[in-house]
Amino acid sequence: MSNLYRLRDFVVAATRAIDGEPPDEAAQLARIRPLLAELIAQDDWLPPDYAIPGPDYYRQYLLHADPLARLSVVSFVWGPGQRTPVHDHRVWGLVGVLRGAEISTSYFASPGGALIAGATERLERGDVTAVSPRLGDIHTVANAYDDRTSISIHVYGGNIGAVARAVFDPATGAQKPFISGYSNTAVPNLWSHGETGRRSS
Amino acid sequence: MSNLYRLRDFVVAATRAIDGEPPDEAAQLARIRPLLAELIAQDDWLPPDYAIPGPDYYRQYLLHADPLARLSVVSFVWGPGQRTPVHDHRVWGLVGVLRGAEISTSYFASPGGALIAGATERLERGDVTAVSPRLGDIHTVANAYDDRTSISIHVYGGNIGAVARAVFDPATGAQKPFISGYSNTAVPNLWSHGETGRRSS
Ligand SMILES: [Fe+3]
Ligand SMILES: [Fe+3]
Ligand SMILES: [Mg+2]
Repeated sequence: MSNLYRLRDFVVAATRAIDGEPPDEAAQLARIRPLLAELIAQDDWLPPDYAIPGPDYYRQYLLHADPLARLSVVSFVWGPGQRTPVHDHRVWGLVGVLRGAEISTSYFASPGGALIAGATERLERGDVTAVSPRLGDIHTVANAYDDRTSISIHVYGGNIGAVARAVFDPATGAQKPFISGYSNTAVPNLWSHGETGRRSS
Repeated sequence: MSNLYRLRDFVVAATRAIDGEPPDEAAQLARIRPLLAELIAQDDWLPPDYAIPGPDYYRQYLLHADPLARLSVVSFVWGPGQRTPVHDHRVWGLVGVLRGAEISTSYFASPGGALIAGATERLERGDVTAVSPRLGDIHTVANAYDDRTSISIHVYGGNIGAVARAVFDPATGAQKPFISGYSNTAVPNLWSHGETGRRSS
């Protein structure tokens, strides 16, 4: 699990893909999606501290945040049978499965206010899917397994842990304010090697 | 020591000061120096994990690195009597004393090759000084105390832990290649609160 350079290279490439570019959701998703697919194609880089399931609830470990809040990268760790409430994001998000498998279910508002479950996607290891206000922003994610941990790597077009968003009661459509925070007080040091910024002059 | 928002605010402001700007050393130093002075004016934000001295050598804990290697922020922790070898940087650097006091001594090449000690500066808590290839890039830094820990916060115009630079034998001027790395495998999570990047549309 020591190939942390894969995460570093992803963060560098994803930052380059947004830095100095207009904040265009479709363009950002198109640029970053293949980078995430490449990152999760190998499961040999996530440090063990960011892969520990919680006893009762899923955990979300921040791996990297852009200081200008244009990007965050999060390890979601699902213990057996764990799942999110119905929730939204309010920024674009990409979900890539690193280990195990997950079930993502979309929800849509009905005229009466209740939320109706739409498509259910089973995401296997290596699969990537997207959410956003434009594409459909309300869903649940659940571990596909009730006997093992699954892990997905999520990338968002903002600092998702600090976004004021909502969880929903699907029966009524009622919203509750939701700021997720993160499960961790320290993030991986990606920078012991690699790019230096030194100019050769 | 829980006012970590001070470090977050510094990182955001320093990133804004360089993002989209030409890599002009004098301009970057002029913009970031007062931000560092403000950061070190209060000693209530550095998490204890990044303030632990080593038994034999000084430690350098990465606090933040820009993925595009335009900036790094490092906590240097000096046990009693600890000091650096004579070394250079090859990028601009700012040194601000957070706790205790330090002695910085500049070196200059003599015609015969040996390095001559120049000015010695005693930096008290709250003081900021600069180094760079343009201003004078070779120095030593030492804890001013032999009975207590001192800590300084350094900011560099690159990822200093990965820069290929040199340590010197001052008697002969002989150089040895030097890549410092960092003492820590995890950096503080600054992003549990604060800027979100969410657009209000
Ligand atoms: Fe989600
Ligand atoms: Fe130095
Ligand atoms: Mg670019």
